[in-house]
Amino acid sequence: MAKWHIDLHSPTRGLSFEVREHLYTETSPYQRIDIVDTADFGKVMLLDDVLMVTDRDEYVYHEMLSQPSLFTHPNPDRVLIIGGGDCGTLARVLLHKSVKQVIQVEIDEMVTRVAKSYFPQLTACLDDPRAELIFSDGIEYLRANHDGFDLILVDSTDPVGFAAGLFRRDFFADCHQALKSDGILCIQSESPWIPDLLELIAEVNRDLKSLFPIVAPYLAAIQTYQAGLWMFQMASKRYSPFSDDVFARLSKAELEFNYYNADIQRAAFALPQFVRAKITPTLT
Amino acid sequence: MAKWHIDLHSPTRGLSFEVREHLYTETSPYQRIDIVDTADFGKVMLLDDVLMVTDRDEYVYHEMLSQPSLFTHPNPDRVLIIGGGDCGTLARVLLHKSVKQVIQVEIDEMVTRVAKSYFPQLTACLDDPRAELIFSDGIEYLRANHDGFDLILVDSTDPVGFAAGLFRRDFFADCHQALKSDGILCIQSESPWIPDLLELIAEVNRDLKSLFPIVAPYLAAIQTYQAGLWMFQMASKRYSPFSDDVFARLSKAELEFNYYNADIQRAAFALPQFVRAKITPTLT
Repeated sequence: MAKWHIDLHSPTRGLSFEVREHLYTETSPYQRIDIVDTADFGKVMLLDDVLMVTDRDEYVYHEMLSQPSLFTHPNPDRVLIIGGGDCGTLARVLLHKSVKQVIQVEIDEMVTRVAKSYFPQLTACLDDPRAELIFSDGIEYLRANHDGFDLILVDSTDPVGFAAGLFRRDFFADCHQALKSDGILCIQSESPWIPDLLELIAEVNRDLKSLFPIVAPYLAAIQTYQAGLWMFQMASKRYSPFSDDVFARLSKAELEFNYYNADIQRAAFALPQFVRAKITPTLT
Repeated sequence: MAKWHIDLHSPTRGLSFEVREHLYTETSPYQRIDIVDTADFGKVMLLDDVLMVTDRDEYVYHEMLSQPSLFTHPNPDRVLIIGGGDCGTLARVLLHKSVKQVIQVEIDEMVTRVAKSYFPQLTACLDDPRAELIFSDGIEYLRANHDGFDLILVDSTDPVGFAAGLFRRDFFADCHQALKSDGILCIQSESPWIPDLLELIAEVNRDLKSLFPIVAPYLAAIQTYQAGLWMFQMASKRYSPFSDDVFARLSKAELEFNYYNADIQRAAFALPQFVRAKITPTLT
């Protein structure tokens, strides 16, 4: 009989899918890592039973965490990724020729090692000499390194356990300090459809607004993440994601994506009324 | 032990949720109707085991099927709803004072009767003298009645069984004939995340473009529908959903919604690249 996995969104709901084969399991100092093969999503990486990466639709999350900020900044030269061990975000950052260096600080080396075996399409970018991997705690790294980044992307797991600190104001303040005077921070910010997470989104939004003049939350449809709708928050010291310059860069760029495009760069920032009731962007 | 229901999106995936209580079951000539109480979504109506309506988030589908067209048309006087037996769409149409008459043609009287018992917040609008219910086959109704509607909304179940005909060109041609010379047709159009359904969406889009000069597909995030992203297609004889008039009406309207707003009126029509690869709106 076929085995099914349920990716819980609450104790009483979740996304269920058939597991054709359990390919790998191992427990790192931080979490249990499983790789399963599925009919609908291809290979899937689970961290402590929570769906993180799929062959079939990883592009939505990774494009949407990275591209809106990469196109908003006129010259993203030095980029820092916190988390992102599967390298899907890193691969999309390196698509931009203006990027000269990307430092990725992932806490769990085993995630990257497993990704190399099961998601080689994501980790192939590690051959790029512009990529530098550090396996360490991102929070501690940022406390010690204020190196002048153009862009910081926070590609974290959910706000529990070792990742909880990546959703706190102290961490955002360290990010602010590590950015150049025109830098941009962009974080993954969970699903507004889950009531507890919408409260967290609102708190994060307030914290970011206390630090950055421009805070622009935006959304993407991710079928394999909780409730199918995912939020990101861009916090920018100078640049607006809606300036004519952004769209001029987009029309000139010779990059093709599977989800992101110029229409999405504008539309992703439109918030449904139930989200607008909880958070107010500083830029509309 | 708690009982769970799985709303299948394919034979190998679906949305699972705990059923706290099974409140009602009955089989009509068309389908089995179940009402269950859930922790996450409140009361839920299932038709042949497929989730149709929830207390918690029915507003997204019903607002997004109705409001973009209602605000696009300068004076939606006579409206026809095909399907929509739960009356959630009807309730949102009647919010507009310009609407003088709404005829709803639902094939299954039992759906409306059950909705009266379990979703009275949706059926309360039946007291409105502008609402007229006909329990009949919508396809046959439109073949016989070419009455000059301003707006036709197709609020159907999935394209199987008795609802399959509501996704065919013949039916759209009858809708076209039943609309005034400046009328608008808007249909629910399934989830682009499900590969077979994306093919259907593309076919429907081609059929609509062969009949209407303006065909504008758009999206909404519906956490309880297949894969969390839902498509609608607006087919219009004259009016554009992006004209300044539309936004002027929106800014003057004293209506408040839970999902829909002026930003969404624009942004919902932005299509991710994987959808753009399959369909081309006649209006961008």
